[in-house]
Amino acid sequence: MSEVTEKVRFAKAASRAFGLLDSTQKNRLLSVLADTLIEDTQVILDANQIDLNAMVGLLSDALLDRLRLNEKRIQDMAIGVRQIIELPDPVGEILERIDRPNGLEILKKRVPLGVLAIIYESRPNVTIDAAALCLKSGNAVVLRGGKEALHTNLALIKTIHDSFRKCGLDPDTVQFIQDPDRGLARELMRSNGYVDALIPRGSARLIQSVIENATLPVIETGTGNCHIYVEKSADLNMAEAILLNAKTSRPGVCNAAEKCLVDASIAHEFLLQVMPKLRAKNVELRGDEAVRTIDPSVILANEIDWQTEYLDLILGIKIVSGFDEALKHIQTYSTQHSEAIVTSDTALADRFMNEVDAAAVYVNASTRFTDGFEFGFGAEIGISTQKLHARGPMGLKELTTYKYLVYGNGQIR
Amino acid sequence: MSEVTEKVRFAKAASRAFGLLDSTQKNRLLSVLADTLIEDTQVILDANQIDLNAMVGLLSDALLDRLRLNEKRIQDMAIGVRQIIELPDPVGEILERIDRPNGLEILKKRVPLGVLAIIYESRPNVTIDAAALCLKSGNAVVLRGGKEALHTNLALIKTIHDSFRKCGLDPDTVQFIQDPDRGLARELMRSNGYVDALIPRGSARLIQSVIENATLPVIETGTGNCHIYVEKSADLNMAEAILLNAKTSRPGVCNAAEKCLVDASIAHEFLLQVMPKLRAKNVELRGDEAVRTIDPSVILANEIDWQTEYLDLILGIKIVSGFDEALKHIQTYSTQHSEAIVTSDTALADRFMNEVDAAAVYVNASTRFTDGFEFGFGAEIGISTQKLHARGPMGLKELTTYKYLVYGNGQIR
Repeated sequence: MSEVTEKVRFAKAASRAFGLLDSTQKNRLLSVLADTLIEDTQVILDANQIDLNAMVGLLSDALLDRLRLNEKRIQDMAIGVRQIIELPDPVGEILERIDRPNGLEILKKRVPLGVLAIIYESRPNVTIDAAALCLKSGNAVVLRGGKEALHTNLALIKTIHDSFRKCGLDPDTVQFIQDPDRGLARELMRSNGYVDALIPRGSARLIQSVIENATLPVIETGTGNCHIYVEKSADLNMAEAILLNAKTSRPGVCNAAEKCLVDASIAHEFLLQVMPKLRAKNVELRGDEAVRTIDPSVILANEIDWQTEYLDLILGIKIVSGFDEALKHIQTYSTQHSEAIVTSDTALADRFMNEVDAAAVYVNASTRFTDGFEFGFGAEIGISTQKLHARGPMGLKELTTYKYLVYGNGQIR
Repeated sequence: MSEVTEKVRFAKAASRAFGLLDSTQKNRLLSVLADTLIEDTQVILDANQIDLNAMVGLLSDALLDRLRLNEKRIQDMAIGVRQIIELPDPVGEILERIDRPNGLEILKKRVPLGVLAIIYESRPNVTIDAAALCLKSGNAVVLRGGKEALHTNLALIKTIHDSFRKCGLDPDTVQFIQDPDRGLARELMRSNGYVDALIPRGSARLIQSVIENATLPVIETGTGNCHIYVEKSADLNMAEAILLNAKTSRPGVCNAAEKCLVDASIAHEFLLQVMPKLRAKNVELRGDEAVRTIDPSVILANEIDWQTEYLDLILGIKIVSGFDEALKHIQTYSTQHSEAIVTSDTALADRFMNEVDAAAVYVNASTRFTDGFEFGFGAEIGISTQKLHARGPMGLKELTTYKYLVYGNGQIR
């Protein structure tokens, strides 16, 4: 029996009792986990140092930084776990009550999904963060982290398992697949009957591989080729602030803007106002021919540019004749994550909100707000860019399903 | 460009305008469709006769009957479409309103999924039924029916397209893949970026093939290895009525009972009461050794029996020591569709409702009620046996998703 075969079975078996725990019991476990993380700080940092030593020279500084833990980052993990304790428990909510003419009483009740699988890459904080969200929502979880973070993850998993034991709960509820063999990741993606849903968290390549190979129900997360459309009636100072924020506040995340569309009638004024400020923030500008007539030093954008989520300090700029061309461009290239219009025309704002097909559509605000915390969910396991089950930021509710409880007194059909 | 590549593009393009129609426009289309079906009756029957003639001797009588249309069946299709007109339109509902401290106003609004694909088998009524449900919920749809029903389906699709034209709407909203090549079905299952969700309707083999091959988000439907557990405190006459109904009222459907578990202390009395009545309805009985000590003429059930959804007049019977053994058996063999307990012990009823993991759990009623009409949804596109997105009977709401509309006045993060 492979590591995956064995561990998904353990997780499924443990999920039954775990899913029946009440909020107090789950919160006590999370509280013990937060304390144990702090107690185990040195052990976790020692394990992290082994991973860092092995990767020096192999990973870029940026990736090494993602992998690196320190006292502050472990404290932040514990703070994150404590924040999850404060969130309302979604499990048990009665979503609907249906009384049928034949006397059947049907309750639609929110329940945990059961067993979740999370496949992720180098950031070890995901191990704690994802586990805590799954546990609060009553789910068992099978984690598969990146091999660069193996020692760190094993230390974190030991902290989690110790916390279960301190609470008299079954540590099998959280499983970690440690063998780096890719065949095992593929096996996990196909463990129907044991795992109820799979959430990949990481690069576009990881997510694509999961979509290609999984037979499990998957929630696709993360790709955001987000547009800011500056319509001709826009307040140009507002548009400038939104564009700068959406592009530069954190360029490596999925809700950052990658493209700016601007109406021809205001393009000259707006671009001459905003381009120097983008350049001052080290943003590389790529534009169509029309943009280059305004500023020939802009790099010519090609078809690939319009399709690309740069995740970097690069902005594609296109001048459009008006709303319809902007809409068509967005419909063609959007990854259906977050799209924004800056306008003072309420009729066009309404059209944008209705006609653009994305998880979040904005009028006069930065796309950077597509985020579980910013939406007020208190936490986030990822941002769904598909339409089944959950769309946009996913919090605790999105880690649950429902069942129908049907109460009769002998009804037959 | 293959037939699939072309048609999914047409469907996606048409879906944009179609998704913006209001309820009146969609209902008018459905009303015209119901009328046109009746007008086209003879053309549809002629096409159906071609399919029937080609299949005589190749299909069993039962399958030929599934394929066969007559005036009454076409009238029933039209009645079904008119019933869908009467249902409330789920699109546009505001599911949540979030006011953020920074002044952002976020509306969570129900919207169509976009483009649905349905892969189904021989019953041609699915063509009208599935199309009408998708259209009422604002979706474009790509249909792929069984090759035995090709001429019938093409006639029905012509009726649908004519109805669109009569209403001045875009017939590209409904596409039908007619080339029987299996490669095209596989291509449809992998048309990410054009199709938003795929619902297979048909045999376990079809559904398994979709799960294996699809990269699209799929809603798994239909397999039901449903149990009736007769607990020792049960009213035995109620248990008899429920078991007979669940097994024999329509043995070929997914919510029919396939297994009966009965507590040892009442097994003798209950089985001697119920087995003659099951046999009188031509039910073949297969039981464990304990059942055979009560009636040696019962066929010995094996491991395969406990796993099998017979969809036939066969019942597997197992005697259990009590609730815990029954629960364990159900946890091991359930397909998570519908499970029932007959009991007068409310504490055990509660345990069953909480601990059995299925789309619908019943106390003292027949599993046959797991059905969109019986649940009061007014229609049904299938019964989901997965946990993501929708679980149990799926009506119009389950053919929608949501988007977040975020209204700002210059907010940046």
